[in-house]
Amino acid sequence: MDSANKTSFTRRDFLYRAAAVGGTGLLLNTMNAWGMGIASTAAAPPQLSGSGKGKRVLILGAGLAGMTAAFELGKLGYDCQIIEARAFAGGRCQTARQGFTLQELGGEAQTCQFDRGEYINHGPWRIPYHHQSTLHYTRLFEVPLEVMVNDNDHSIVYLEDAGPLSRQRLRPAALKADLRGHTAELLAKSVKNHQLDAELSADDQHLLLDYLAHEGQLAGADLRYKGRSGRGFSVNPGAGQLPGAGTPSDPLGFKQLLASKVGKVYSAVQDFPMQNTMFQPVGGMDQLAKAFEKRIGKKVRYQTEVTSIRQDAAGVSVTFKDTRSGKAGKLAADYCLCTIPLSVLRNIDTDFSDKFKQAVKAVAYAPVGKIGLQMKRRFWEEEDHIYGGHVLTDLQGINTISLPSTGWQKKKGVLLGYYNYQTAAIEMSALTPAERAEFALAAGQQIFPAYRASFEAAFSVAWHRVQYSLGGWAEWNEKNRASAYPLLLEGEGRVLLAGEHMSHLTGWQAGAIESAWQQIAQLHERAGA
Amino acid sequence: MDSANKTSFTRRDFLYRAAAVGGTGLLLNTMNAWGMGIASTAAAPPQLSGSGKGKRVLILGAGLAGMTAAFELGKLGYDCQIIEARAFAGGRCQTARQGFTLQELGGEAQTCQFDRGEYINHGPWRIPYHHQSTLHYTRLFEVPLEVMVNDNDHSIVYLEDAGPLSRQRLRPAALKADLRGHTAELLAKSVKNHQLDAELSADDQHLLLDYLAHEGQLAGADLRYKGRSGRGFSVNPGAGQLPGAGTPSDPLGFKQLLASKVGKVYSAVQDFPMQNTMFQPVGGMDQLAKAFEKRIGKKVRYQTEVTSIRQDAAGVSVTFKDTRSGKAGKLAADYCLCTIPLSVLRNIDTDFSDKFKQAVKAVAYAPVGKIGLQMKRRFWEEEDHIYGGHVLTDLQGINTISLPSTGWQKKKGVLLGYYNYQTAAIEMSALTPAERAEFALAAGQQIFPAYRASFEAAFSVAWHRVQYSLGGWAEWNEKNRASAYPLLLEGEGRVLLAGEHMSHLTGWQAGAIESAWQQIAQLHERAGA
Repeated sequence: MDSANKTSFTRRDFLYRAAAVGGTGLLLNTMNAWGMGIASTAAAPPQLSGSGKGKRVLILGAGLAGMTAAFELGKLGYDCQIIEARAFAGGRCQTARQGFTLQELGGEAQTCQFDRGEYINHGPWRIPYHHQSTLHYTRLFEVPLEVMVNDNDHSIVYLEDAGPLSRQRLRPAALKADLRGHTAELLAKSVKNHQLDAELSADDQHLLLDYLAHEGQLAGADLRYKGRSGRGFSVNPGAGQLPGAGTPSDPLGFKQLLASKVGKVYSAVQDFPMQNTMFQPVGGMDQLAKAFEKRIGKKVRYQTEVTSIRQDAAGVSVTFKDTRSGKAGKLAADYCLCTIPLSVLRNIDTDFSDKFKQAVKAVAYAPVGKIGLQMKRRFWEEEDHIYGGHVLTDLQGINTISLPSTGWQKKKGVLLGYYNYQTAAIEMSALTPAERAEFALAAGQQIFPAYRASFEAAFSVAWHRVQYSLGGWAEWNEKNRASAYPLLLEGEGRVLLAGEHMSHLTGWQAGAIESAWQQIAQLHERAGA
Repeated sequence: MDSANKTSFTRRDFLYRAAAVGGTGLLLNTMNAWGMGIASTAAAPPQLSGSGKGKRVLILGAGLAGMTAAFELGKLGYDCQIIEARAFAGGRCQTARQGFTLQELGGEAQTCQFDRGEYINHGPWRIPYHHQSTLHYTRLFEVPLEVMVNDNDHSIVYLEDAGPLSRQRLRPAALKADLRGHTAELLAKSVKNHQLDAELSADDQHLLLDYLAHEGQLAGADLRYKGRSGRGFSVNPGAGQLPGAGTPSDPLGFKQLLASKVGKVYSAVQDFPMQNTMFQPVGGMDQLAKAFEKRIGKKVRYQTEVTSIRQDAAGVSVTFKDTRSGKAGKLAADYCLCTIPLSVLRNIDTDFSDKFKQAVKAVAYAPVGKIGLQMKRRFWEEEDHIYGGHVLTDLQGINTISLPSTGWQKKKGVLLGYYNYQTAAIEMSALTPAERAEFALAAGQQIFPAYRASFEAAFSVAWHRVQYSLGGWAEWNEKNRASAYPLLLEGEGRVLLAGEHMSHLTGWQAGAIESAWQQIAQLHERAGA
């Protein structure tokens, strides 16, 4: 696998995949069109008038989309029943803590062995400030939030393939300071050499030099970059005379920086959807799922697999299998809201039209892998003074090591040992849980000397191998976004679809929630007609 | 005062003062030499051998410096006694919550009327990740920390004096995106026009264009900046087709941005000491003071004012006045560690040499003012989706409005209505508490429509008018840093000085703690000799 990985792994892959974690400014294909919004487009559920009294809605899946729908439709008087294949609610909104079990398809069972109080959000793990739909429910349900440190200029960048800066522990702050300092100096020189006289008036040139001197912290009349406090000191200021006011550190050379291409690991501004302020629920992402479950849990029939979906002019009928007893059963309703991932739905017996079935099959699901590593000591805090954020690396199959944004200064902590995607995720998923842990430890050891010695327990997931999920998120491309997507948004007859896959926020809880909001409005309209 | 303020207030003042809050990249004079350190210079107390058994140390002041000294000297066996003028420990490390009272010299008494659970850190309020000395004790004493959002690209910049961008609610993310995009485009053009052939090889030019295309997100073969997702969308992406993938927003014009000089409100990288990850103790900064008090409180004699300090070959004697009974008293010891601010010490009767007395008088103390405003509704979160961080403004006397980094999504919150310094702080301190609140509300109302209507209670402080502090922090200049500072660091005979003023981290708790560490080492050496 190693060699396969080597050949399949390019710097471009790294940068491409790093974007999945948001540590860099690069974007996933699916994000190209996205932006940060000053106003949220969907900050509250739709205001629906009329009543759903006497109408039965069968909701397939107790993930965030299904539970959002049940919660909101219930307020309108609809009689909702949720069918959930898993023994718990939340879908991919999961948190692995002591006793949590997972068995991937064809894989061995894992039972999380972390200490009490330690956990990893192996599914969704971040809520950006502009996901007002998700934040609507954390606020309504009073789910306590804490800041998730998604940007840390004082974390580490460690690249194997960075020319003259390869295999060094670099700090993003130093890279930003030096690249912006050198480029500001270069542009200032162009201005002073009158090379921009055609572009800018004398006044504008004066204003630009003023800006560049600030942005690049250029010193002297000749506006040279000679380093800055923000890049880091070799010795910090302190008390008394020694170390006194601190000892400056030397900037990295411009040509060296250019040759290393490290400028691509950060962005001038964080791109949507990775922007701060970033949140996480205190105690684990599943606290959000549990908050929903507390309110609509009675409507959920657990460990019940959907085997078929049928509809006629009169209503919808769904057959299922109880995974405990193995017994089959059937439920009828006026409408059905199906939140089952398309990767799973495509294998369920339905009477959808061929066109609709083709659309269901059209979208690929992202192979995604994560591993949580419990460390008996927070060496990253104690020795490197890194508090949260991501360690960006091109080490094969790792993409990022992310440090916990909770339990500050506690003895132990669970870090994210890798967050891989596509090729690397597929390769990693071929390994056993123990092999994955070994892979992650060998890589992390190259960056942190105390890594392997501090390791206590691992828990990993390969979402594309997880039953009832079969992938991290729906990965639309331009073609099927234009053809299949609009068709699926319409649903078919009495069956409507909801979930992150029915949004432009794929892979995000906000996508599932906003999709549910949109589809219940459509269902309500259809039911009223 | 208004006109006086107008004349005394310039854009330079704003930028200069804004640095005090760290919202901009500009530096206070005292910070010019400072830098961010990758390794902390003082991460743990000095390892001292030998014993202080049988030796009495009189510590003047139960602030962080005094309590740090008592805690560490106690471990060595010294018999420490602390004299504290206030009725509580912590010095300037204070948190105003319901019932907290403050009477400035010559001012009316304020009793904090905030709701239970609401508070403002009107003294120190931030602990940067590299203040390992402060973090040593939060870790040792298990003081829970939470992230203090010190950078928020999605907060607001509102300037009266920004030319074409005056009186607009600007978002830092948009300013960074556009200025960096336009300047990257400009430099790319210089490269393509072969104006840098003398500077850079063809290869380096290629690498530079590659970097600029990423940093400025330049589009097309002609490398033009046309906006980016990071600057914000006019409509966010969501579920379904509408708003679909989001609606782009138009960049601000380059000349407009240059003329506004808004590029100076942010920095290429955060300068020391404002760097993230930034922390605050859960429940208020005074939790740190209380953690010390819990351990050494028995050694503290409260409400006891020092009236004189004397020493001879045999020891030190300190006279005091009990502020409750008014009775005078006297205490003797082998050594004295005086942590009283120099602004206060200069008025105490001592037998220091004239040279030493002059040195004590040499340093000025910073006029600093803060006001906490309890709002009955978190309109900044609910309406503007701003979670923590600073609103940067040049509105007279305000400098910044800082939004709370705690109690996310709760109904109420206490924000910092102004954090002013120097001239503005002096002018503000001439007002009554009610007048200060009115001043803050009138200013904030210009930025947030719901500001005044949401106001419930205010608590303000002018540190230069606070008895036993008489200023925010010691403000050394180059001259007295070279002359008076070294002299004071030596102490005189059996009397040594400690506190933030005896450090290059003035105004920071780390300065007080590291100064105590340094001075107890000196005391221990002197005591051993």
